[in-house]
Amino acid sequence: MNQPAEGPRVALAQINPTVGDIDGNAELVARWAERARDADADLVVFGELSLPGYPAEDLYLKPHFARANVVALSELAKQTEGIAALVGFAEPAAVRGDRRRDGPAPRPVHNSLALLEGGEVTAVHRKNRLPNYGVFDEVRYFEPGSEPLVREIDGVRVGLTICEDLWEEGPPGSLEADAGARLIVNASGSPYLRGKGADREEMFAARARAYGVPIAFCNLVGGQDELVFDGHSFVVDATGEVIARAKQFEEDLLVYELGGDAGRLEQPLGDLEEVYAALTLGVRDYVRKNGFERALVGLSGGIDSALVALIAADALGADRLTCVVMPSPHSSDATQKDARMIARNLGAELIELPIEAAMRAYGETLGDAWSGAGLAAENVQARIRGNLLMALSNDRGALVLTTGNKSEMSVGYATLYGDMAGGLAVLKDVPKQLVYELVRHRNARSGQDLVPPSVIDRAPSAELRADQLDEDSLPPYELLDRVLEGYIERDLSREQLVGEGLPGETVDEVIALVDRAEYKRRQAPPGIRITSKAFGRDRRLPITNRFSG
Amino acid sequence: MNQPAEGPRVALAQINPTVGDIDGNAELVARWAERARDADADLVVFGELSLPGYPAEDLYLKPHFARANVVALSELAKQTEGIAALVGFAEPAAVRGDRRRDGPAPRPVHNSLALLEGGEVTAVHRKNRLPNYGVFDEVRYFEPGSEPLVREIDGVRVGLTICEDLWEEGPPGSLEADAGARLIVNASGSPYLRGKGADREEMFAARARAYGVPIAFCNLVGGQDELVFDGHSFVVDATGEVIARAKQFEEDLLVYELGGDAGRLEQPLGDLEEVYAALTLGVRDYVRKNGFERALVGLSGGIDSALVALIAADALGADRLTCVVMPSPHSSDATQKDARMIARNLGAELIELPIEAAMRAYGETLGDAWSGAGLAAENVQARIRGNLLMALSNDRGALVLTTGNKSEMSVGYATLYGDMAGGLAVLKDVPKQLVYELVRHRNARSGQDLVPPSVIDRAPSAELRADQLDEDSLPPYELLDRVLEGYIERDLSREQLVGEGLPGETVDEVIALVDRAEYKRRQAPPGIRITSKAFGRDRRLPITNRFSG
Repeated sequence: MNQPAEGPRVALAQINPTVGDIDGNAELVARWAERARDADADLVVFGELSLPGYPAEDLYLKPHFARANVVALSELAKQTEGIAALVGFAEPAAVRGDRRRDGPAPRPVHNSLALLEGGEVTAVHRKNRLPNYGVFDEVRYFEPGSEPLVREIDGVRVGLTICEDLWEEGPPGSLEADAGARLIVNASGSPYLRGKGADREEMFAARARAYGVPIAFCNLVGGQDELVFDGHSFVVDATGEVIARAKQFEEDLLVYELGGDAGRLEQPLGDLEEVYAALTLGVRDYVRKNGFERALVGLSGGIDSALVALIAADALGADRLTCVVMPSPHSSDATQKDARMIARNLGAELIELPIEAAMRAYGETLGDAWSGAGLAAENVQARIRGNLLMALSNDRGALVLTTGNKSEMSVGYATLYGDMAGGLAVLKDVPKQLVYELVRHRNARSGQDLVPPSVIDRAPSAELRADQLDEDSLPPYELLDRVLEGYIERDLSREQLVGEGLPGETVDEVIALVDRAEYKRRQAPPGIRITSKAFGRDRRLPITNRFSG
Repeated sequence: MNQPAEGPRVALAQINPTVGDIDGNAELVARWAERARDADADLVVFGELSLPGYPAEDLYLKPHFARANVVALSELAKQTEGIAALVGFAEPAAVRGDRRRDGPAPRPVHNSLALLEGGEVTAVHRKNRLPNYGVFDEVRYFEPGSEPLVREIDGVRVGLTICEDLWEEGPPGSLEADAGARLIVNASGSPYLRGKGADREEMFAARARAYGVPIAFCNLVGGQDELVFDGHSFVVDATGEVIARAKQFEEDLLVYELGGDAGRLEQPLGDLEEVYAALTLGVRDYVRKNGFERALVGLSGGIDSALVALIAADALGADRLTCVVMPSPHSSDATQKDARMIARNLGAELIELPIEAAMRAYGETLGDAWSGAGLAAENVQARIRGNLLMALSNDRGALVLTTGNKSEMSVGYATLYGDMAGGLAVLKDVPKQLVYELVRHRNARSGQDLVPPSVIDRAPSAELRADQLDEDSLPPYELLDRVLEGYIERDLSREQLVGEGLPGETVDEVIALVDRAEYKRRQAPPGIRITSKAFGRDRRLPITNRFSG
């Protein structure tokens, strides 16, 4: 174990930058650097690629985007006096070639961390290890660095790393420890998934013990399309103990003194609290960062739209939420009454738009050209509702939140351009069983039934024909969710699923439904990722595909 | 230059496999191997990953998928007697680890080429160079090989390469030439873009001259979601001359004898013929491989839907095409007459569904809840049409082809869930100016005005309000398309575009429109790629993004 040292005071600035907003992000960095200096910190650390935002995807391929962030970095260096700062930026790669038409090209930038001291950039660490799995495509954008970097800051040798650099043992972290680092800083953009905060603490603890060096992990916070960065920055000492921990899902400044004041130790959120907070932040930031003031939710009286309304009200405030109830002749009085009550309980605006007149108009217009029955007729109803919500959205500039859950998105139990119409699919990665748990959790937290018990107890129904129940078309959700977890999240084969005791007939049915629904998911709005395999960047399957199982 | 040799007779089997259809692809390979043997070939070459299909995306991550294709390969080896065969397959990588939850993992497979001889797999070449730019994500899936491979086949030393292995000078191609290869075979899955066939011939000619070795390039053919593989397999001799060339956009067997019979030399298609053929094959294969029998097109009387109807009729036969005309009070008699005439000229089924009754129903239902005017009211009309087409689609099991062109998709001049509703966006990568050229080309080819001149001459209009013209909302298409080509295909900045003589005000307007429409494109159906930067896998931008220019 390397000798424990004293000082410097390190501030982890857990900020919420916006992708592409280089000037805004620079201002944010400057402001938090000032706060850190006011807290007597010697060094302030920001998350990965804080300046350009992360992940900025193909923006990193635009040379003028990288140039703009380099200009902002130089300006920032002049502004951060009296404190050293580590700021993530996209560093133009030294060797640049023209990007050949449909041909290989040198990556245009490094994923880098700049050390700003005394008005200048005095050192730059380039990320060595580039994740290119799951939601990550870093080999598409970044030229990897190949060197460790240890710098003396306030008289103490500090090793610099960026996210994945420390996720496996070995260089650059091990080399920095060998080179006498007394502290390793890790600037990360590590997106949330359920339970990942605990995984990270465990992983960094193992690394700290192996290297005999404390590690200070600073993560981003905030929503970016499908991803939510959960913050949850922390410091582990050289024995692997977590000695300081920042808040989850909000901006925070965590100050820690090497060999001195350990800093604040926030209590981690419970499992359901954590998921609920991720969804809430995901909605809030998608709405805010895309310039919307209001959101719209179609309330059916079912559990899914109830949860979306709860989350939206928590994310935006009930005064910025409009609930729309759209009864048809197949809607029951009970569900409509529940829908109205949820809107009232939340204190949100309520609009009622019966769809029977539009249903009749479609029937008359289509006349002999169609059968007027079956799935086609059911989908027309869902699409009328989608159109009504979109008409209100276009008219008021409000974002439509869709309400389908992961179980439905998996098996395609949803109408494309109908209930799938909207800007953000809040529950796209939330399985049906978890929807119930989250509603119960939120009801319990508020100490009142914001969502009436009848909504929780009623058997799920799409109400697109008389006496319809989800279980007429699908296996019971408890069984369905088990098959889906194995097939989607763990990529198990039919044989492995049956080997786990799941009924073969159900497995076959579910696999066929999941595979067939790929074209629907391709046109679905983005959703907020909370599992290890979300639909979207995380799971990329061809539509044209004859493999099953 | 290595000594010219005589023999073997090499057959390039340019086949059209289907992603995931391992058994069907194995049968296809066996059948074409037999054809090659019947043509007295000693060696038959198939395209990249012919057995599992390409690109199979995250299917490659499923261990049981790779296992199934290995079983099929062994079976195939037994079936291909009397001829050596080179067959692309996904080869399970030797070192396998559990895929960690949201963590790095060893790539599960190699992108490999197996040599089948005498009932066995006698050699395997692993792709050394993995493209990970543009539409390619091979670093996500494949563990690269690091060795060249030269094998003696029929007494002649043959070097094996896979696609990108030869796109740059250097290993493995150069090492194979150094090791005395008398012929280098390149098994490819190289997707089409406009003019790429000529690019490839030039590039392989340069390589053949540099190495002093002839190169036999065998490509896949067929549509796979966004991509069209164009075939266009060929042989260049050691001086860089193309001495044999297969057909474009259809299956073909090209036989060439080293030092002997040069083989057939097909004439390459002209520019517009080539683009038209790509779109036609893309539509045909998307429909066929996804199990549809029929397609539906909404005909407005405008140029875009006219072109889609032409392509669909050529791809599927007019008897499998239904044209739907959906007039509103804003539709002119002239456009409706033209729409009917196009359907008649093609001999396709025609359905007429006026949308006025549905418009009225939405107006009455929304009542005081909306303004009933502006964009919201225009979008309702487009969405009624989308719903009508989808009702017919659901009722008949026919695929809806959408008609928006690339210029419209770029600036968001389209209604999400309205005219964007459908399974395949045929013209998503075809700029407006090229739409006109393709219609004129197709009219000329048939020697009659399948599309009436009035459709070509009329100023474009969405006909969603009285006297509306596209040019009321957008710059003239000629100017618009120039800005888009620079901004999208060449990733130029605002300053560079203005530097090319484009008016600054227009540039600013177009850039703002393109950036703002990202959320629409994310929910658009897949389209057929014909340019070097298609919307989809090729251009990946965040929705939440404040960078502009």
